[in-house]
Amino acid sequence: MATLIKGGRIVTAEGDYEGEVLIENGKVRALGQDLPAADGVDVHDASGLLVMPGAVDVHTHLDWEFGTARTVDTFGTGTMAAAFGGTTSVIDFANQSHGKSPLEGLEDWHERCRSRCVDVGAHMIVLDPFPQALADLRTLAREEGVTSFKLFMAYPNVLMVDDGVCFYVMREAAKHGAVVCVHAENGYAINILVQEAVAAGNTAPKYHYLTRPPELEGEATARAITLAEYAGAPLYVVHVTCSQALDAVARAKDRSDLIHGETCTQYLFLTSQELERPGFEGAKYVFTPPLRSQAHQDELWQGLRRGDLSVVSTDHCPFCFEEQPYGMKFSKRQGEAEGFHKIPNGGPGIEHRFSVFFDGAVSKRGMSLSKFVELMATNPAKLFGIHPKKGTIAVGSDADIVLFDPVARWTIRAAEQHSRVDYSLFEGFEVQGKVQKTFLRGNLIVDGDQWLGREGMGEFLKRGESGRL
Amino acid sequence: MATLIKGGRIVTAEGDYEGEVLIENGKVRALGQDLPAADGVDVHDASGLLVMPGAVDVHTHLDWEFGTARTVDTFGTGTMAAAFGGTTSVIDFANQSHGKSPLEGLEDWHERCRSRCVDVGAHMIVLDPFPQALADLRTLAREEGVTSFKLFMAYPNVLMVDDGVCFYVMREAAKHGAVVCVHAENGYAINILVQEAVAAGNTAPKYHYLTRPPELEGEATARAITLAEYAGAPLYVVHVTCSQALDAVARAKDRSDLIHGETCTQYLFLTSQELERPGFEGAKYVFTPPLRSQAHQDELWQGLRRGDLSVVSTDHCPFCFEEQPYGMKFSKRQGEAEGFHKIPNGGPGIEHRFSVFFDGAVSKRGMSLSKFVELMATNPAKLFGIHPKKGTIAVGSDADIVLFDPVARWTIRAAEQHSRVDYSLFEGFEVQGKVQKTFLRGNLIVDGDQWLGREGMGEFLKRGESGRL
Amino acid sequence: MATLIKGGRIVTAEGDYEGEVLIENGKVRALGQDLPAADGVDVHDASGLLVMPGAVDVHTHLDWEFGTARTVDTFGTGTMAAAFGGTTSVIDFANQSHGKSPLEGLEDWHERCRSRCVDVGAHMIVLDPFPQALADLRTLAREEGVTSFKLFMAYPNVLMVDDGVCFYVMREAAKHGAVVCVHAENGYAINILVQEAVAAGNTAPKYHYLTRPPELEGEATARAITLAEYAGAPLYVVHVTCSQALDAVARAKDRSDLIHGETCTQYLFLTSQELERPGFEGAKYVFTPPLRSQAHQDELWQGLRRGDLSVVSTDHCPFCFEEQPYGMKFSKRQGEAEGFHKIPNGGPGIEHRFSVFFDGAVSKRGMSLSKFVELMATNPAKLFGIHPKKGTIAVGSDADIVLFDPVARWTIRAAEQHSRVDYSLFEGFEVQGKVQKTFLRGNLIVDGDQWLGREGMGEFLKRGESGRL
Amino acid sequence: MATLIKGGRIVTAEGDYEGEVLIENGKVRALGQDLPAADGVDVHDASGLLVMPGAVDVHTHLDWEFGTARTVDTFGTGTMAAAFGGTTSVIDFANQSHGKSPLEGLEDWHERCRSRCVDVGAHMIVLDPFPQALADLRTLAREEGVTSFKLFMAYPNVLMVDDGVCFYVMREAAKHGAVVCVHAENGYAINILVQEAVAAGNTAPKYHYLTRPPELEGEATARAITLAEYAGAPLYVVHVTCSQALDAVARAKDRSDLIHGETCTQYLFLTSQELERPGFEGAKYVFTPPLRSQAHQDELWQGLRRGDLSVVSTDHCPFCFEEQPYGMKFSKRQGEAEGFHKIPNGGPGIEHRFSVFFDGAVSKRGMSLSKFVELMATNPAKLFGIHPKKGTIAVGSDADIVLFDPVARWTIRAAEQHSRVDYSLFEGFEVQGKVQKTFLRGNLIVDGDQWLGREGMGEFLKRGESGRL
Repeated sequence: MATLIKGGRIVTAEGDYEGEVLIENGKVRALGQDLPAADGVDVHDASGLLVMPGAVDVHTHLDWEFGTARTVDTFGTGTMAAAFGGTTSVIDFANQSHGKSPLEGLEDWHERCRSRCVDVGAHMIVLDPFPQALADLRTLAREEGVTSFKLFMAYPNVLMVDDGVCFYVMREAAKHGAVVCVHAENGYAINILVQEAVAAGNTAPKYHYLTRPPELEGEATARAITLAEYAGAPLYVVHVTCSQALDAVARAKDRSDLIHGETCTQYLFLTSQELERPGFEGAKYVFTPPLRSQAHQDELWQGLRRGDLSVVSTDHCPFCFEEQPYGMKFSKRQGEAEGFHKIPNGGPGIEHRFSVFFDGAVSKRGMSLSKFVELMATNPAKLFGIHPKKGTIAVGSDADIVLFDPVARWTIRAAEQHSRVDYSLFEGFEVQGKVQKTFLRGNLIVDGDQWLGREGMGEFLKRGESGRL
Repeated sequence: MATLIKGGRIVTAEGDYEGEVLIENGKVRALGQDLPAADGVDVHDASGLLVMPGAVDVHTHLDWEFGTARTVDTFGTGTMAAAFGGTTSVIDFANQSHGKSPLEGLEDWHERCRSRCVDVGAHMIVLDPFPQALADLRTLAREEGVTSFKLFMAYPNVLMVDDGVCFYVMREAAKHGAVVCVHAENGYAINILVQEAVAAGNTAPKYHYLTRPPELEGEATARAITLAEYAGAPLYVVHVTCSQALDAVARAKDRSDLIHGETCTQYLFLTSQELERPGFEGAKYVFTPPLRSQAHQDELWQGLRRGDLSVVSTDHCPFCFEEQPYGMKFSKRQGEAEGFHKIPNGGPGIEHRFSVFFDGAVSKRGMSLSKFVELMATNPAKLFGIHPKKGTIAVGSDADIVLFDPVARWTIRAAEQHSRVDYSLFEGFEVQGKVQKTFLRGNLIVDGDQWLGREGMGEFLKRGESGRL
Repeated sequence: MATLIKGGRIVTAEGDYEGEVLIENGKVRALGQDLPAADGVDVHDASGLLVMPGAVDVHTHLDWEFGTARTVDTFGTGTMAAAFGGTTSVIDFANQSHGKSPLEGLEDWHERCRSRCVDVGAHMIVLDPFPQALADLRTLAREEGVTSFKLFMAYPNVLMVDDGVCFYVMREAAKHGAVVCVHAENGYAINILVQEAVAAGNTAPKYHYLTRPPELEGEATARAITLAEYAGAPLYVVHVTCSQALDAVARAKDRSDLIHGETCTQYLFLTSQELERPGFEGAKYVFTPPLRSQAHQDELWQGLRRGDLSVVSTDHCPFCFEEQPYGMKFSKRQGEAEGFHKIPNGGPGIEHRFSVFFDGAVSKRGMSLSKFVELMATNPAKLFGIHPKKGTIAVGSDADIVLFDPVARWTIRAAEQHSRVDYSLFEGFEVQGKVQKTFLRGNLIVDGDQWLGREGMGEFLKRGESGRL
Repeated sequence: MATLIKGGRIVTAEGDYEGEVLIENGKVRALGQDLPAADGVDVHDASGLLVMPGAVDVHTHLDWEFGTARTVDTFGTGTMAAAFGGTTSVIDFANQSHGKSPLEGLEDWHERCRSRCVDVGAHMIVLDPFPQALADLRTLAREEGVTSFKLFMAYPNVLMVDDGVCFYVMREAAKHGAVVCVHAENGYAINILVQEAVAAGNTAPKYHYLTRPPELEGEATARAITLAEYAGAPLYVVHVTCSQALDAVARAKDRSDLIHGETCTQYLFLTSQELERPGFEGAKYVFTPPLRSQAHQDELWQGLRRGDLSVVSTDHCPFCFEEQPYGMKFSKRQGEAEGFHKIPNGGPGIEHRFSVFFDGAVSKRGMSLSKFVELMATNPAKLFGIHPKKGTIAVGSDADIVLFDPVARWTIRAAEQHSRVDYSLFEGFEVQGKVQKTFLRGNLIVDGDQWLGREGMGEFLKRGESGRL
């Protein structure tokens, strides 16, 4: 069956124009004007709407065990929320366990991932580079379509790896067309600051940000870049939050095409003031790296403008504030007694990126539509090996399409969201711009408030070479 | 009548994909797969070919009086040459005379321009900012579609204006959506170096480059940028040739979206060694700014890679080497007796940019096809207010299309070119990649070696707001 | 006759220590502890005092005609004021007239300079580089001891020279061991801003700073540096006032030992707020470049700390506020009717630099004593070819010595100053640190409030090679 | 007894002048001209000689156990060699053992150090920051005169500490007026490169430098700087060898007065070519960081010129090439069988720094005498808390004085040196400039080839606050 979207303004990373999209077999069959609508074609009127590529969110943690906590969204609930927010492709994290093959980690992830509602790929978190594990990285990249490896320079004794492990993994990535994603903070120094704060009785949520200074994110970012450059590996610095880290990325980009930086919605719209909220409310904003000052936020916007940041993702890592459902332990609240260091680290965001960022970037700051699409869809698709299948509206691409009303005004409310998490970082934000319809490979899965998709309809994204634009 | 281009790989600045282009009424009606070819549709098989937007050359001097010399190409011959080289849009220079309105200069230019074979717009060279002249700049930008003003910081007593004039014009440009184009060299200091060289009997062609050092281009570039930033005007630095100027542009781009830099084919493929050729041969390479060392050339390639240079144009400014035809005075040769400073400044290039740059950038250095299209067509079209009409292949755009064979190998010979000039800067270059067909608004005007166009068929490009990507 | 200064702490640019200074024949004969005091030695007890080199002020305009105005201090009154402020060496400005030899300008200056009370040298302002004038620059440097040439990039039609003149003079300087001093502002663009402000009726004193933006000082500074570097000449940028200019100097210093920057006391302690004073009071602060914002002032302090600024001088250029004495025309007040552009440009400061800067730098900001001496005395002496005769306390050096009380607190009052000018830029400043005694070549010329010197006792400073530290 | 040095040219970091030095009780009593020579004064004629402060070498490893090897010089032989080379103050390394107090390490060092011939202070190498050890750092700095702590970011499992330890120690240093010295290389990544080289059979000496790339020195340098800045501690980066590390230091110096860099003689005069010598000869040049390419060496000279490097020391760490004397194990040769990684790391240099650097810097590159003295003596004395007692010739300072012949030419030969090591890195260097006499606190200890000093006459340098110039 064919679908025709007509009357709208088509936007890609290159520009925008009035035109129609003809979809057949889940792909874009034609773009044009006055395209002949054969009988039985399902016609959608997009008058007054923007016709944009389905967004790509390359940084989520669904149904993920982090230390002793587990994120509250299943792949089903998380990707349904994504779809309501215009996101049709997600890349999530599988993880190796110590002493075990990353292939086992992938298998486990595939199991959990079955309920996905949109297309989903996997990064692999690497912890333990014993010889067979390194050999398995090749298999992941060359055979399994997992062409990105994630390394943590923070969280000692949990996820942190030393510079030798980083270097090993980077060299493997360089050989196999994979990109290394890095969480860059100096875990050792932060650990000291945290322990001292706790010892001094400074346990309120705000100490989360006071013990993770931007200098230590900048340091680790510069270190990761040097190691990656020496290893010849593409590097993707996740969640850049501060001028120090941004500066390191910007200077590297002047030297190399292999270094890229991501920021996330929350760092562009919120500041560390949120952690100073009365009572335990600040715990909602406990994620890592922490929110920064307004000056850093301003720098991130400049970084987007200059092209030094290539992607805006979510780092969706949802823990309920009050109580985790279904008997899961460790809501935010459960960290209240012992202190900020026991609050599960993470915040939700998968559902509201598109609208929040559209409002801030396009409506308020005059960003061009094509730049908006580039950051939401095209760049992440290119960097993670799924373009032009994803991330654009072009002949032959998957018909992942969002019909977006650029003037509709609405207010974000956790009560109305589709994720299972019980709060939103953007509660009460009045934004301009709203998703009207979402198509996944030609299927209309979101229509206004209506959910037309189903769990399991998402495909696994077997990805190609990654790490370059 | 409709035209269908099928079997090729369509390339835009966003990416590339297999698809067909359906053209009607000179515009792209549809892009798709297996588009229905109605009866009478003219079908072109592009199998194995790249289907790219017609190139945009924003820096040419056709039928132009420069001091006592005049360039040898008419608009007819020059734009025919352009078309053979895949260029379907040209922006050329009209000029104000001292004490006269720039509107008179435009009228004169329109007269000369009638014979154009492709679409042509005009920049306005401003010399004399008396009050009415400044008022006329508004008319040019707002009514005449001339949204770019050119200023010379070189050539004292001929074209050079002082910083006050620059500042006046920049402020007008800022008000009216126009961009200022600047030839940046410190004319005063260069004049001294030239006079001294001549006085010392150093008159060989090589003294052309030895008296125009890169430091003085860098200085003027930085000066123009500061003035433009303070005036709030978009600035387009033409023919950046050296690391000093590039560095100034790069730093400005970090601060602002209003500063852009162009380089030209010759600076990417030739060095000042050409001016050391035996005899008077070096005179062929006398143009301004001069060719630089290999180190500078390498920096320019880096500048393209980093995005600090946005356009590769030609500065096509052709004077015959041996004898100007049709009784025109001042061939290159006629400068032989008195010295390098009397050689007409300028070199040809309108015809070979596409192939030479494709060979160097894509075939030899691995530049992506989309980046190539961006530099040749999309960026210049955006910066000079003609996108998306020009510079892309999108629904509704003008059907200016090049079918390009990316593997054909051929040798550049002046003897075979279509410009009236009697030499080529790239004589003997063996390049990979050749234009097979050129369409101007749906009309096939070049088919292999065959010229199917005609003088006068080009339209005037009435341009919109300029100076931004 | 010999003089012994004992009990004090001797400070040089290298460090400080307790010791005695034995002076004979106007020079330092010995430094030591328990030096034998022969009969008849004049002993000064410096207990609790700092024993510092007499300060060197390389930027003054005494008895100087500037446009239609003339500064109010004679060499006699100006240098007496200097001596009370601890300054024992001054370098002032001689100037060439159009069409005349600079040697004539020097002769005239020597005439005016006879009444000097401290040692005085001359810079030469160059306006008109006709061939003999250029030849005379050699005579100035090689024979007359005038090893610095001043160029103005501001004040069109008065003092401004074009870049060609700059370049000519720089090359002569490079040949003859001289340094080029440059007043760096883009005169053309500023002229436009001034004319427009006046035309718009914006004539209050504050428009002085609003029409001379820091961007245009930065531009000219960068331009002067490029020209000097290409000419191979040492360059001394006078009165750096803003981050843009400072940044240009700092980057040049990374490349070269030949570029240096000066700032003046007023830019370190005052801001453009002074020009906003009610009524016509702001006219007191009309000098060029103008005072800047606090952010620029902060940058200047950083520049001193980093070593990017080498000298703090005064640019003492005194015009009375109310009425010029002795029938001289053009007090500040006389510019009240027509507007800020008619106010004589200049401010006083020769007398208070030492105390004001000591208070701000040492007492308030913790600058080391040796760094203080370096900026006040050693660096200017080195840069202008009079070290180690001047600028230090070393065996064999001229015994120009200041006994300074580092803890005395006092208030600056124009009513108590020795210059003939009727106001002070630092009126009411309470400062810590006061000159107790000043020795010029062993002669005690200032003792507390007492003047023991006499007009005519100062010598002409015939200077050596200049422009390097 | 008094000593008078007359007829020479006295040089300090501030300048130079002709004068005499009168010494009494080991200190400079007076500087002057025609100082009265009382009876019994020991007069030294310094005609034609430079009278310079005794040099300060802040980086030596005497009688030091490094892994399984021990350096061959005792404090007696090493400091005698130093004295012949004009060095009268040395700062050497004491070290903490795991689980033991650094105070025990200091006690042990004091024991070994008794035989010193010149004045010697100690840095403390910190390995293990258990609570009492951190407390003992305070004692070291406040009571024991050990105001510098050394940290190794290289040599995992031997000396390397993690970033947490660095951070702990930096914060202690910041509290107690101490400076942190850091050996900056990324030990983890280097370890991998070394293991892989050895596994691949690449065991020749040249693999020493090929497995320790400059990128990894640059990384660690930047990391140390960030940690120190965040901790508020002064930092002294020892042996900067490459542009990457230099660049990190230079940028930090723009922000802060607390960051300083040192290089060593060998990095200024030798390149990695030495490690390519035939046979096992390259082992002589195995020290860490390794020698670099000519381009890096050139950068180091620029760094000295710009002031980005503050000290030139030796890192004297002598192991014999053929056989360690007195039954000591592990000569360079003993590493021949197993590979480069088993060669003791270190090279000699304590004796030849003054002459080699004078020849290269002053004779060949035109460095000023005062800058030479600054790098050899004044800066290290200031940075390590012993100025103005050491590092200058001023009234009241220790009379550590070198009479230096600036035109004498001689050839460096290991056969003629006084260290016990059996080779020299500068074998066969013909240099201009030779130490004639060395005075330690007024005692003539070196007179031409004659040794007049004795073991045990050196004093312990109890140092003051460190880390600032």
